[in-house]
Amino acid sequence: MKIGILGGGQLAQMLAQAGTPLDMEFTFLCPNEQACAAPLGRHLCFPFDDKAALDQLSHWADVATFEFENVPAHVVQTLAEHTRVHPPATALATAQDRLKEKQAFGELDIPTPAYAAVDSAAGLRRAVERLGLPAVLKTRTEGYDGKGQAVLRDMADLIPAWRRVGGVPMILEALVPFRRELSIIAVRNAEGEVRYYSLNANHHREGILRLSLSLDCDPWQARAEEYVGRLLRHFDYVGALALELFQTDEVLLANEIAPRVHNTGHWTIEGTRSSQFENHLRAIAGLALGDTSLSRPAAMVNLIGRLPSLDAIAQVPGATPHIYGKAERPGRKLGHVTLSAGEDGFDAEFRHRLAQLLRIAGEDALAAELKEPTAA
Amino acid sequence: MKIGILGGGQLAQMLAQAGTPLDMEFTFLCPNEQACAAPLGRHLCFPFDDKAALDQLSHWADVATFEFENVPAHVVQTLAEHTRVHPPATALATAQDRLKEKQAFGELDIPTPAYAAVDSAAGLRRAVERLGLPAVLKTRTEGYDGKGQAVLRDMADLIPAWRRVGGVPMILEALVPFRRELSIIAVRNAEGEVRYYSLNANHHREGILRLSLSLDCDPWQARAEEYVGRLLRHFDYVGALALELFQTDEVLLANEIAPRVHNTGHWTIEGTRSSQFENHLRAIAGLALGDTSLSRPAAMVNLIGRLPSLDAIAQVPGATPHIYGKAERPGRKLGHVTLSAGEDGFDAEFRHRLAQLLRIAGEDALAAELKEPTAA
Repeated sequence: MKIGILGGGQLAQMLAQAGTPLDMEFTFLCPNEQACAAPLGRHLCFPFDDKAALDQLSHWADVATFEFENVPAHVVQTLAEHTRVHPPATALATAQDRLKEKQAFGELDIPTPAYAAVDSAAGLRRAVERLGLPAVLKTRTEGYDGKGQAVLRDMADLIPAWRRVGGVPMILEALVPFRRELSIIAVRNAEGEVRYYSLNANHHREGILRLSLSLDCDPWQARAEEYVGRLLRHFDYVGALALELFQTDEVLLANEIAPRVHNTGHWTIEGTRSSQFENHLRAIAGLALGDTSLSRPAAMVNLIGRLPSLDAIAQVPGATPHIYGKAERPGRKLGHVTLSAGEDGFDAEFRHRLAQLLRIAGEDALAAELKEPTAA
Repeated sequence: MKIGILGGGQLAQMLAQAGTPLDMEFTFLCPNEQACAAPLGRHLCFPFDDKAALDQLSHWADVATFEFENVPAHVVQTLAEHTRVHPPATALATAQDRLKEKQAFGELDIPTPAYAAVDSAAGLRRAVERLGLPAVLKTRTEGYDGKGQAVLRDMADLIPAWRRVGGVPMILEALVPFRRELSIIAVRNAEGEVRYYSLNANHHREGILRLSLSLDCDPWQARAEEYVGRLLRHFDYVGALALELFQTDEVLLANEIAPRVHNTGHWTIEGTRSSQFENHLRAIAGLALGDTSLSRPAAMVNLIGRLPSLDAIAQVPGATPHIYGKAERPGRKLGHVTLSAGEDGFDAEFRHRLAQLLRIAGEDALAAELKEPTAA
């Protein structure tokens, strides 16, 4: 089967790695000449909205998908004229706009932090008066990895923040004193079959994901499945969908969705029988979904900015490196390492290995801080 | 790291699939225009003994390896002039000649079926008188998947068998009334670190492997490790080595070695943290070896000659298809499916799924026959 992908980064690369054994071929439309997925298929090196390239892709592909959510909606429309496209454009449009996203959560009775739309400096002041501080100001569109965000802690922060990230449609969100950042990835096929992966506990630094841990039978699993299941049915969704959550003492609050495979689910390659990449492809190709149950708990450590020695990683027992083949650049995701737990899950032996791996990845502070990474 | 591979079939393909996340690049020297590994790297489409292509490969590669054992020894010598080559040429030369192979087993005190070298029709008669019948006549070199072999059951079989497969240096082997066909795959790096995979129970039909099952803590594991360990040390071997064995009521007899990754170890992709492909690459690249312990028992079913529907395979719970992208042809290995067991190993539920998968693969007889696949 011929799969067209908008984007050619590491998510497209891992999709192609999962799809090649499923007898799938890949074409990537990606303006980046160094697209790291390119060696695994054909690379159309054009802007995403290049009409001729989109025509070529949609005529060639049996089904098209995307690896990131900042593709203009009209691009997906153009693609859909000649081929099937999954996930649906409506989910993409919702994920592209933090305000629409919050409204969708509301319609589906999925709780969120308090929020307000903000379109001016005066509007920001009114929103702060309503929500209180601390709060976080975010662009409604095009933010990722902490970009386009400003945390407001007192009234003096408002004007500098508005000057730095404002001037475009924004949203203000109450800063929730959460206990954990969680995410859940689920997948649905065209027949409405749904599978859920185990919850992930996520650790960010400087707005970038550093570490995810798969959670075995977490008490919040059922609630998270309920929420992501509502979203899947609402959008008549086909493919993998990630839902990011904040867990406080009493509630689970939706933060945002990503209508694609997700960095917090990379451990599923080693930790389940059918990874998020395989199941996204099974779903969009019209195949039965594979088993998503946790076969071995795992952690995933991102390699950001610079690549440590592969030999050092290889020496950590149970570590599986995934190097994307991208040039080093501060803040850039260059690879990740999955660390599989033994039969006793996240025991002391595992945490020792994880601390070792985190130090190799340059995450010394996280290594030191991580005493009980899985406490609910 | 740049890896050169002699051969471009499915073993090279799965090596490249395992190596891409390890930041490795691949070039395949393979005379087959349709080499299924080719899309995963650069393809030098020349005969194996093409001097210019070998020069090009050896200048480009940091290390070279081979995916099958019928590469002429002088080819490996040429390669070794400009780059490291693993596994060693001595192991390759031994594997290429059934007589040398048997002699190596003998030197290492590894028992084998009784055998005799045969160079003429008269010599065949003398060998049969010494070993008795039934016996199997095999070409000393270049046989695989049951080719170049003839089973002799009575004296009348000798002349027709000699006419069909003889005329070249042969070996006669006593046909052992074995209980099981087993194999073990082990891997060794340049520092002498050795790791063993779980034994495999193998089922052939028409000389072609149809099914392998990983064996969890089999009583013969230690003996098999001892034998393959002797071979690894004897050859100062670097890379993955497969040893095929016959198990009778009392003894384990060596059949043959394959100085490469092996069809009976394909389940290691899903069933261990570091597959045979990953560990072969770790070994030849000078990295620490990964964990070979069985994390979930698994079976592997080959897809031979024709490809069943991918959808049918996808519907078997716990089945992971690996389609190689080769054209259909009778007797040709087109793909395989790994079937992962649950926590209870090869229980009734697993055997039910396995029978289902075997029927999809066209192996109805094996599905019917396989009552207790793991009995020692």
